[in-house]
Amino acid sequence: MPASLERFFNPRSVAFIGATDDLSKFGGKCLASLFKVGYAGPVYPVNPRRSSLFDRTCYPTIAAVPQVPDHVGIALPAAVALDALEECARLGVPFATVFTAGFAESATDAGRALQRRLTDICKRTGIRVMGPNCNGMINYVDRFALTSTAALTGERMSAGDVGVVSQSGGAGQVNVMWRARQAGMHISYQVSSGNDADLDLLDYVDFMLEAESTRIVLAVAERIADGRRLEAVARKAAELDKVIAMVKVGRSEAGARAAASHTGSLTGADEVADAALRQYGIIRARDPADLVELARLLRRRNRPRGRRMAAASISGGNLVMAVDLAADAGLEWPEYAEPTQSAIHRWMPSFGSVANPTDLTAAAIGTDETLTSAGRIILDDPNVDTLVPILTMAKANEIDAVADLALAAEKPVVVLWTGGCVDDPALTIERLVERGVPAYRDAVPCFRAIAAAAWLAAHRQQLRGGAAGAADTGVVPPAGVELPAQAGNLTERASKQLLAGFGIPITRETLARTVDEAVVAARAIGGEVALKIESPDIAHKTEAQAIRLHLRDEDAVRSAFSAVIEAARAYRPDARIEGVLVQEMARPGFELLVGVTIDPVFGPVITVGAGGIFVETLRDLARRIAPVDAATAEEMLRELRIYPVLAGTRGRGALDIAAVVHCIVAVSRLAGQYGDRIAEIDINPLVVHAAGEGATVVDALVVTRESGSGPVR
Amino acid sequence: MPASLERFFNPRSVAFIGATDDLSKFGGKCLASLFKVGYAGPVYPVNPRRSSLFDRTCYPTIAAVPQVPDHVGIALPAAVALDALEECARLGVPFATVFTAGFAESATDAGRALQRRLTDICKRTGIRVMGPNCNGMINYVDRFALTSTAALTGERMSAGDVGVVSQSGGAGQVNVMWRARQAGMHISYQVSSGNDADLDLLDYVDFMLEAESTRIVLAVAERIADGRRLEAVARKAAELDKVIAMVKVGRSEAGARAAASHTGSLTGADEVADAALRQYGIIRARDPADLVELARLLRRRNRPRGRRMAAASISGGNLVMAVDLAADAGLEWPEYAEPTQSAIHRWMPSFGSVANPTDLTAAAIGTDETLTSAGRIILDDPNVDTLVPILTMAKANEIDAVADLALAAEKPVVVLWTGGCVDDPALTIERLVERGVPAYRDAVPCFRAIAAAAWLAAHRQQLRGGAAGAADTGVVPPAGVELPAQAGNLTERASKQLLAGFGIPITRETLARTVDEAVVAARAIGGEVALKIESPDIAHKTEAQAIRLHLRDEDAVRSAFSAVIEAARAYRPDARIEGVLVQEMARPGFELLVGVTIDPVFGPVITVGAGGIFVETLRDLARRIAPVDAATAEEMLRELRIYPVLAGTRGRGALDIAAVVHCIVAVSRLAGQYGDRIAEIDINPLVVHAAGEGATVVDALVVTRESGSGPVR
Repeated sequence: MPASLERFFNPRSVAFIGATDDLSKFGGKCLASLFKVGYAGPVYPVNPRRSSLFDRTCYPTIAAVPQVPDHVGIALPAAVALDALEECARLGVPFATVFTAGFAESATDAGRALQRRLTDICKRTGIRVMGPNCNGMINYVDRFALTSTAALTGERMSAGDVGVVSQSGGAGQVNVMWRARQAGMHISYQVSSGNDADLDLLDYVDFMLEAESTRIVLAVAERIADGRRLEAVARKAAELDKVIAMVKVGRSEAGARAAASHTGSLTGADEVADAALRQYGIIRARDPADLVELARLLRRRNRPRGRRMAAASISGGNLVMAVDLAADAGLEWPEYAEPTQSAIHRWMPSFGSVANPTDLTAAAIGTDETLTSAGRIILDDPNVDTLVPILTMAKANEIDAVADLALAAEKPVVVLWTGGCVDDPALTIERLVERGVPAYRDAVPCFRAIAAAAWLAAHRQQLRGGAAGAADTGVVPPAGVELPAQAGNLTERASKQLLAGFGIPITRETLARTVDEAVVAARAIGGEVALKIESPDIAHKTEAQAIRLHLRDEDAVRSAFSAVIEAARAYRPDARIEGVLVQEMARPGFELLVGVTIDPVFGPVITVGAGGIFVETLRDLARRIAPVDAATAEEMLRELRIYPVLAGTRGRGALDIAAVVHCIVAVSRLAGQYGDRIAEIDINPLVVHAAGEGATVVDALVVTRESGSGPVR
Repeated sequence: MPASLERFFNPRSVAFIGATDDLSKFGGKCLASLFKVGYAGPVYPVNPRRSSLFDRTCYPTIAAVPQVPDHVGIALPAAVALDALEECARLGVPFATVFTAGFAESATDAGRALQRRLTDICKRTGIRVMGPNCNGMINYVDRFALTSTAALTGERMSAGDVGVVSQSGGAGQVNVMWRARQAGMHISYQVSSGNDADLDLLDYVDFMLEAESTRIVLAVAERIADGRRLEAVARKAAELDKVIAMVKVGRSEAGARAAASHTGSLTGADEVADAALRQYGIIRARDPADLVELARLLRRRNRPRGRRMAAASISGGNLVMAVDLAADAGLEWPEYAEPTQSAIHRWMPSFGSVANPTDLTAAAIGTDETLTSAGRIILDDPNVDTLVPILTMAKANEIDAVADLALAAEKPVVVLWTGGCVDDPALTIERLVERGVPAYRDAVPCFRAIAAAAWLAAHRQQLRGGAAGAADTGVVPPAGVELPAQAGNLTERASKQLLAGFGIPITRETLARTVDEAVVAARAIGGEVALKIESPDIAHKTEAQAIRLHLRDEDAVRSAFSAVIEAARAYRPDARIEGVLVQEMARPGFELLVGVTIDPVFGPVITVGAGGIFVETLRDLARRIAPVDAATAEEMLRELRIYPVLAGTRGRGALDIAAVVHCIVAVSRLAGQYGDRIAEIDINPLVVHAAGEGATVVDALVVTRESGSGPVR
């Protein structure tokens, strides 16, 4: 269990080592923030060259401070900072923040050594540290701050319901916190945590979730240290009915790393993070602006029960655009139920056809209540999950009425207000947001947030139903198939034997060491056969051209045998050749890829998607953190663009989805069974036959890790 | 040639029929706008019940007005409005605006009749009319307005370089005009044109493009009346080096209409509009907010020469996010050339590795010039097309220096400023935009606009090179293959014969009327054959199960013959059956779809994409307004996700791209040759073989229109 960060965020007293009253210096800025935010407890500046600072006594050392502070800020050069940290620990200080840069982020040996020393101090003494190389934190709830940021501006220091965490300074403090405050939201806590040498981004998220004030945590994460921890924090958010929305930075680096398997080369760190966030119910935002837009709605607890929208406006142009943009976000426009239509007719007999979205032009006879009156009727409609009243240029009375409706209604009412107030310039969208109204300037972020809220509600519903999560896969592991002790690629045959052990159907095949053995094997199999080189050193047999297909007779087998061996030798002269695999030609079918990779943060990841020549072209893949149960495996298949081919389309029958699901679940079980021994699994293709006729593994590659290389997570 | 709209936009005198001084009424609002905008010419209110209005003489009829006004506004009930319009025409008034609703938009017969009457008046008398059902226009350049909008707010009425057109009122006047002005831009002309019964959206665009003031026209179009006119207007924009950016509304209705062919069902009005806009060099915006964001950069004439970005900032967090977001927009991050690296090192010796984007943290020693100094060096780099300086919280001096650089530099310098000014609250991003600086709050619209500007620059370059456009396709049309006079589906055989006439290779096949004929035909073809029903009434033979494949011998052919005919009869008992097509089994290959549809606005559209079972699943299609030349056909193929399969991937050789290109060009030529007789063409699959081995049409459907049904555009 992580230590409670109560005294870190809300210390009874604070000291600052490296204090100065020069406001152009880091230490001066930090102390100025502390006073500006209105910290009420004792502040102890530490600087041997000064006797007082900001009209307070200044102390030569932390030891000279008259009480042990709960939180000490340290802004000294790196090496000296660690000496000061040691002294804090010795005195029993529970929390410190090391602002100084020049640690691991410098990517130098010296920097990394300093960071290791910092971590050692923490482990040895129990002191908990934020940073190094960080820009600190703000607690708006209890009025405490230790940060140099220039983004702590303005008069409105009220605490709000939005928590903000990031590793970097500017991205979190300016792009998220400052902008959210500009938009009319208030912040509970903000942290820019830097290198996370000891306390980690997720520790702060955890604290904020538990704090009553916070309804949503907006995170900009350059690194996630521990996937299991992320899952736990996300689970806590669900239990407390709070929300985590996250920008995970570094997407374009995805897929850059080398891998032996297709799956490996297609599964970069970013794809895994993406799958994990969705699986855990964390909303992934594209950038900080997206985070702030999402927060307008997602900090509210009345979430849509589904994707069914309604909208009303006197601006027909805005309504037709809303139809497009909501559909882009995956939302639907149901017809109103009959009672709604009747009610609108009773209310406004001149009104023509009552369509959704609802153009109020005809009904809007100059009253300020048209939109809210129509809105109330529409909200009663059981076909409607969310109402979006759209305002352009509007009067204060009308705007306030819509805002009141949004705050009072049980279903979400999300206000889209594209213009200004004609009779009260002080009535801005920021003022609505400050009142707690989910109000948007633009349709795209508005519908995006509604779709995210509906998705989150469904995810939580599923969690409560117990359907999600790593349920029992239902596959019984076979009695020990031994993996070779050393790391490396298994041959095709060895890989497939391993899969077969978990009940996954493979092609009939025999390893032939001589051309005569090959002929005998081909005869035993009957019909057309394929010959493939069997070598742990040649993972991509097609690339090596060490493969021959559709061999119909003995002559063909004989000449293919030597051709395959020659091609393999030409491709890689030092390859260890175990023989030639004589294999039945699988019945034709639709080719999928099923694979496993191990992510250093999230552990085993299972991937399924379009196989064969389409793997790289379409990149039509679904991923989950393993293990997965049958329901999840089916969900993965439904996510694929090529799913209609599996389900049957245009007069072609369905394929054997159940067989694919079994394969996914069994592979996921296999990856779990061998724990830290599996590095990658790649089944490509898994040929899927017509419904009831199964699926066959035609080629596979298992890559092992060295025995004893430790758990992956 | 359209009439010059000079006197429409800038009349020497104006009358308003339906005048009132009640500011809650439409007429009162229009007159108030006219005075507010500072119109200098004579204004003649017309209202028989008043002798004066707004301290001006009010006239009982338009005939009583002492001079013939250049522009008359009419706000009377629909039928009376037309009487007034007749009188205006009789008096020689050149331009009128009919604001009244209740015309075609009411979707009633009465409304449509009224609109026809309006159009007749225009045709008969030559008066040109905006509307009906419109909200009017504003000319900021010469200070004239006729509109009821509440969005004409604020003190800053200066004319700018942004033109705004829309059919709807709110969408154009609030979401675009008001918001662009809020963002710091100024408007030249604005039009909300309503039903476009006479003058059309594109007439106003045309006028604005020719007006010197306007650099960019932002359009929200619910309807485009004439594709050829759009092409001409776009060409004018290119010649004048101006920009059109457009929201085309009604996307979600796409694909709703019924069609006989795959291509038809996959090519909705919206897909066609999308292809046309790109082909013509019009930037398609997603929504009004997107238009306004694009205008920040696109109104400037120094466009990027390519997609190579550089960025610099003291916020490392913002730089790592920029890398992701620019990559999402299709932009690149080149390494700096060696001289740039040396120059940065000379300028700031403490600076470590000089990467792009450039983190200035180490170099930023408190001066306000760091960013501009680095920026100047980076701009000299030949590898860099566009520089994005990123500011978070910054000082006024630094912000001004960056703004000056952006205004002076030859290459585009696009300022991304995510925070505020720490020492001058009046220095906002709106002030930078007002000075003409392309300044953005958020990275996503910033990079989106840079990518759009680079795309536009490349499109214009290509235009100048003469590569784009409807060049000669190089296919010589055959001596007249006659199409049947009546509309309907051609059979597979007739369709393929037509294609063969244009040099497109088809499968060898024979029409058999009896089972014995089928056996003879199969023997003549040799090898495996397919049998398919030949009926103009059965377009989808697979769905009808009236098709048998891989028939190897006489027995198989015999039983297939009757099976195919039985299936056809069961599927559609009244189908006219011409026989059974005996067809060679095409060599296996990769399946594409090539098709033609006729769009009512844009004319013939050619489509190419993934064929066979992937058509609906992947919807991986490229489209162009026909005809296309070989270069364009190849460009279409490169747009496909499955292009790597054609080009050769993972040890598999390239396919015969040249044969596909020939087929596309020939089909496009065919559609042109038969003018208004072709309704749809659908080749699915076109089986593509290995490079040099051609491509074969295995199935095709041509749908004809009735002879004499007139040109499609």
